Amino acid sequence: MKELSQENLTTVIKSRPQNSHKGTFGRSVLIGGNNMYGGAIIMSSEACIKAGSGLVSVVTAEKNHTALHARLPEAMVLDWAFTQEFSDLIETADVILIGPGLGLDTHSRQMLEKVLQHQKSEQWLVIDGSAITLFAQNQYSLNYPKKVVFTPHQMEWERLSGLKIIDQTAANNQAVQKQLDATIILKSHRTEIYTASSQYRNPLGTPAMATGGMGDTLAGMITGFLAQFQEKEAAICAAVYLHSLIGEELGKEKYVVLPTEISKNLPYYMKKTEEKR
Amino acid sequence: MKELSQENLTTVIKSRPQNSHKGTFGRSVLIGGNNMYGGAIIMSSEACIKAGSGLVSVVTAEKNHTALHARLPEAMVLDWAFTQEFSDLIETADVILIGPGLGLDTHSRQMLEKVLQHQKSEQWLVIDGSAITLFAQNQYSLNYPKKVVFTPHQMEWERLSGLKIIDQTAANNQAVQKQLDATIILKSHRTEIYTASSQYRNPLGTPAMATGGMGDTLAGMITGFLAQFQEKEAAICAAVYLHSLIGEELGKEKYVVLPTEISKNLPYYMKKTEEKR
Amino acid sequence: MKELSQENLTTVIKSRPQNSHKGTFGRSVLIGGNNMYGGAIIMSSEACIKAGSGLVSVVTAEKNHTALHARLPEAMVLDWAFTQEFSDLIETADVILIGPGLGLDTHSRQMLEKVLQHQKSEQWLVIDGSAITLFAQNQYSLNYPKKVVFTPHQMEWERLSGLKIIDQTAANNQAVQKQLDATIILKSHRTEIYTASSQYRNPLGTPAMATGGMGDTLAGMITGFLAQFQEKEAAICAAVYLHSLIGEELGKEKYVVLPTEISKNLPYYMKKTEEKR
Amino acid sequence: MKELSQENLTTVIKSRPQNSHKGTFGRSVLIGGNNMYGGAIIMSSEACIKAGSGLVSVVTAEKNHTALHARLPEAMVLDWAFTQEFSDLIETADVILIGPGLGLDTHSRQMLEKVLQHQKSEQWLVIDGSAITLFAQNQYSLNYPKKVVFTPHQMEWERLSGLKIIDQTAANNQAVQKQLDATIILKSHRTEIYTASSQYRNPLGTPAMATGGMGDTLAGMITGFLAQFQEKEAAICAAVYLHSLIGEELGKEKYVVLPTEISKNLPYYMKKTEEKR
Repeated sequence: MKELSQENLTTVIKSRPQNSHKGTFGRSVLIGGNNMYGGAIIMSSEACIKAGSGLVSVVTAEKNHTALHARLPEAMVLDWAFTQEFSDLIETADVILIGPGLGLDTHSRQMLEKVLQHQKSEQWLVIDGSAITLFAQNQYSLNYPKKVVFTPHQMEWERLSGLKIIDQTAANNQAVQKQLDATIILKSHRTEIYTASSQYRNPLGTPAMATGGMGDTLAGMITGFLAQFQEKEAAICAAVYLHSLIGEELGKEKYVVLPTEISKNLPYYMKKTEEKR
Repeated sequence: MKELSQENLTTVIKSRPQNSHKGTFGRSVLIGGNNMYGGAIIMSSEACIKAGSGLVSVVTAEKNHTALHARLPEAMVLDWAFTQEFSDLIETADVILIGPGLGLDTHSRQMLEKVLQHQKSEQWLVIDGSAITLFAQNQYSLNYPKKVVFTPHQMEWERLSGLKIIDQTAANNQAVQKQLDATIILKSHRTEIYTASSQYRNPLGTPAMATGGMGDTLAGMITGFLAQFQEKEAAICAAVYLHSLIGEELGKEKYVVLPTEISKNLPYYMKKTEEKR
Repeated sequence: MKELSQENLTTVIKSRPQNSHKGTFGRSVLIGGNNMYGGAIIMSSEACIKAGSGLVSVVTAEKNHTALHARLPEAMVLDWAFTQEFSDLIETADVILIGPGLGLDTHSRQMLEKVLQHQKSEQWLVIDGSAITLFAQNQYSLNYPKKVVFTPHQMEWERLSGLKIIDQTAANNQAVQKQLDATIILKSHRTEIYTASSQYRNPLGTPAMATGGMGDTLAGMITGFLAQFQEKEAAICAAVYLHSLIGEELGKEKYVVLPTEISKNLPYYMKKTEEKR
Repeated sequence: MKELSQENLTTVIKSRPQNSHKGTFGRSVLIGGNNMYGGAIIMSSEACIKAGSGLVSVVTAEKNHTALHARLPEAMVLDWAFTQEFSDLIETADVILIGPGLGLDTHSRQMLEKVLQHQKSEQWLVIDGSAITLFAQNQYSLNYPKKVVFTPHQMEWERLSGLKIIDQTAANNQAVQKQLDATIILKSHRTEIYTASSQYRNPLGTPAMATGGMGDTLAGMITGFLAQFQEKEAAICAAVYLHSLIGEELGKEKYVVLPTEISKNLPYYMKKTEEKR
């Protein structure tokens, strides 16, 4: 198992091309946030925009739009009740994230089904949070697994893989990865990444980060990195490492690090990485 | 009467265990905020999350959800009109806070009744603000008084104890504490804490903190400390002391210290305490 | 005409009494903010709370509650459609402010009428913005004029006094003040204050402050100062001077000073004044 | 083609006249922000106010009012469904901006038609975003073209001019400018400005600014500069240059510069320019 390091950042976070525009850095569509968990998709959105995705649209319960815009006018919004517009929007995405605060009810399931059906071969898809549980419960399959990233914590991985937490060894995890054929980011105290060709282990992370919303923020960062960087496996590794690196750094001054503070600091840490190259 | 001191902080605020996750630091459920006093439960929520509770759900009038999320996407929300979901949610709590901005009408009273009926032996319960008044008016009793904290100011204590402010001496207060069998935090210029075995006096506090919402913030801090720290009486003492300590420190630069600034500074002061050990 | 100076601040902004609570610093009720001008009453509220009023309730169109709470959970709110609760609330006030963003329609006029009818002899009343225009249009009279402050700009003063801007000389202004028997704060490039016994001129103010909302902020400051300080004429002078002093200071770094930045800086400047004594 | 430079700023951003009030610095009316793109008009509003327009009213879908006020109580709002009030409001404007987040549906088109019909000879009009597309689709004409500014990016310019991106040479662009008789700000990696008498090229700009909302922010700045500065062509050039200058400066510390950060920094950079004179 390879250990993630600073090098995973410097490989990915390069100087942007001078002649570029917002389209150059990818269009992300984020789906989640029901009436109880709207904060989750707000946190993902902040991470995605501050990580540098050029355009970010958020599909969420109408109730969450105002709080999202009060924090982040840079995001575009769509009421998730609008099914035709939903189909039209996911059609335009470079990367789709579904799951943060999505919930488990019928409408949420239907949105996941639509995303799974409509994913195009060139689109990346990140499946997080309750979308993982729905995926496992309904035994869905993937059209383009090689372009899918699952981001389970250990309980969600148990549901998805069938492996009890005690059996979640590297070998067993890798075996399930092979069946799924997707990238797995198994979140824990020391997050692990399983791809078709490699296993990575994140040496960073601090208990100051053990607070609700950290996973939503990571999912948003991964989406933002996939949207703008070309080497996708490397981009995923960089997002995982940077999320913990910022958390550790902020944790030197704070007993608790809120997820939104990770996002707030992204542009500075990405710049520092660019300059280290 | 023991005087609270820096030692009450260092005893409690230790380095977090490395191998931990958000569940390690407790699930808090906060109930309050009607159509007029929504700000109260927002302030409690900020204090609870920034004090380090791993997961925080807020049960409040639907009207308050957007303002809460605009400030704090880290919180989860439940419309307090949903009675079944309310029962399900309090079932999951490690600590319940009821009262900030709750109001005195029938629905508020019914929520308090449900909380009192459903408190489980392992759950801590903090009763603040209008919930204290409702408790006194309706002469409720407690299932697990040893796991209950009341946080009255002097007028609320008069209602709850029957002691007029002039009669609120340490001896009289302690006598009522014995009847109630719960922990009493009697808020004033110099806050006092009465438990079954001890009396504590807070030597700190500044008139810069004499502004609406300070009590809501303290209630949220106590909840967050109970959620994550194991020694409960010590956690309560630490929350009371730290609240005033931060207020005093900020009061050196500000004529008025807003409650939300106390919360904002919590992660820094908790870290400083950890480092002093 | 006396010139306001630093001394007007040091006379008023003293160290707060140690043994105090939020009630010590006064209860303010602020009325304004219709569907178009909700920002005005939000700005007044921020100024009033950050100036140190112990308790602040805001009566405004329901539409404005969420934005207010998103910025300032320290405020309490009342939907201004609720007439009985409105009467109950103004009954409890130490100081009432009516006018910022109030508008000129029937409901606004009715609220002004109710305030004018119900003002008690011990309550101070600040009449600002559209409430001045309504007052002038309807030729209302005052029950306790010595406890009323009008804060017109020059156009509003023309409506209230009948004096065209060119005729607004100190002598003419003072003559109208005698008729009204209230305190007049005539806002302009160099604001003037007319009381029964004195005239004051503010030597401060910068064109960086010439932006919408400055008057709403000043009205909120005056209200907060009346709520907490005992010498009322001195408190009014201090509020006027401090508003411009902070604006000038911030204007050294900023081409435009937003009203909300004045409020944000209030607690620091008030502390500096306390320390200068 | 003239290259924009620091001189374009110092010519325009002078010390404000001492004896001034909010009316001195112009009344702006901003129209945009439908149910999906509310963030766009919020970003324009922030830029316009922080650039120094004395009074700013925002006509947008009612849904966007709360988020706007939560960020910016300095703005006034009008529900864009109210057609009579809309007509009354644009009557009062010194500068009108229409387009950011406006959308392309019938109601949006009708608002654009009304603005085009009612523009008065002394009013400046900025046409941005979807309003450019609507203008091109419907082949509208201008009453006072010399007082109109179009702010297309290259795709919008293709729609408006009929020139494919590859054919958008200076000569071709200038030829279309002559037909339209309006000022054209052609946004790209290196933005160009075409007026009746001159062509300008902006040498600044960084890929850190390639993120959604930058154009909305620029449109708001141009509006704010037109509102307060007398030399209109110079004001436009200054806005374009300053927008990129701030972006470049912030881009030295941040990998991604959010549009709202440009606005936040406007008052400081404008002050620095004033002091350089």
